[in-house]
Amino acid sequence: MNISPEERDAVYKTIFSRRDVRREFKPNPIPHDVLDRVLLAAHHAPSVGFMQPWDFILVSKRESKTQIKQGFLQAHAEAAELFEGERKEQYKSFKLEGIEEAPLGICVTCDRSRTGSIVLGRTAKPEMDLFSSVCAVQNLWLAARAENLGVGWVSIVHDKVIRDTLNIPESIDIIAYLCVGYVEEFHDTPDLERAGWLPRRDASSAIHYESWPESSKE
Amino acid sequence: MNISPEERDAVYKTIFSRRDVRREFKPNPIPHDVLDRVLLAAHHAPSVGFMQPWDFILVSKRESKTQIKQGFLQAHAEAAELFEGERKEQYKSFKLEGIEEAPLGICVTCDRSRTGSIVLGRTAKPEMDLFSSVCAVQNLWLAARAENLGVGWVSIVHDKVIRDTLNIPESIDIIAYLCVGYVEEFHDTPDLERAGWLPRRDASSAIHYESWPESSKE
Repeated sequence: MNISPEERDAVYKTIFSRRDVRREFKPNPIPHDVLDRVLLAAHHAPSVGFMQPWDFILVSKRESKTQIKQGFLQAHAEAAELFEGERKEQYKSFKLEGIEEAPLGICVTCDRSRTGSIVLGRTAKPEMDLFSSVCAVQNLWLAARAENLGVGWVSIVHDKVIRDTLNIPESIDIIAYLCVGYVEEFHDTPDLERAGWLPRRDASSAIHYESWPESSKE
Repeated sequence: MNISPEERDAVYKTIFSRRDVRREFKPNPIPHDVLDRVLLAAHHAPSVGFMQPWDFILVSKRESKTQIKQGFLQAHAEAAELFEGERKEQYKSFKLEGIEEAPLGICVTCDRSRTGSIVLGRTAKPEMDLFSSVCAVQNLWLAARAENLGVGWVSIVHDKVIRDTLNIPESIDIIAYLCVGYVEEFHDTPDLERAGWLPRRDASSAIHYESWPESSKE
């Protein structure tokens, strides 16, 4: 199956305009057919040994969101203490999640024992199953962007809070908690770049030929 | 910036027709402008705290590929011993990599100390930086598919082989070794599904509402 240049450009448009959304969520619900498409795209991520270790827990209950938001506030306060001076004040000033504003939360998990203990392709690299679930997150994120839905990955919360709130057994790994919803706008650049927290690396600095660059070898 | 329904459908076409390619590589080189676009898309993955921890090592030297192929053969032989009976024979019969056939290898890494020890968003979930590099892999994979380039993720090789071959310092994590090139064809379904190794899970079995399903709680 061939992808045309126009279709290719649509993929690039989606990749380059994808954002981590924290403050621009609108309350409008996500239509079922839209959500089904996004989740099906996530489910078609690559997975090691075709184990498809992911699950998606859809969170719309207010009590659950409140509980996860409390977990965020605690982890955020802990984190703030790790920064110093101006950096700490800047960190505290950022809005870093939209847990309660987004109409939907999606928890993406990884069942490492799915399909048994010996998994084709995981034998030499045990973390491959976790990475498969991360690929599902990125598929979900891009599909959502293609539907003009914003996604924000909330990582400033301890797994235990999400586990307790959503009744996730200890045997299941928590990969991501995502906030999903329509948005007021998609900014041209990432929030942290715009705020001057860190600059965008020049792409060429990340590309090397044939081996790790000698100069930066430790 | 709005994504149109036609553009959305192009994204879905790309996601659903992406494959893990092992046997269909053609030797044709990848034009520089095509490769530049694919790598730029990878570089525009989301990253925790905007740390952009990834690097991309492009591998085209025959000696490097031979060395990595040898590492695959060793890890593959070790893995075969873990399967039993018919499953072992089936495993041994699969072609699981195209290291020497693909014109290009790309090693994706993660520099966990990039931007310092305290990273915004990593404080409560330390593996977030590794996950960022995995998002870059998935962006790369989809961009490549949009360029009608196949990608195969080789995970049946110990990190040490790739580290030694490409001179990667111990301080840098190896996330993925990808084979990239034009292909004879993209199959409609994953190789392992077609071979009857494992079936595609029904998407609905992966979707849960408000909490982990009671019946499967351990």
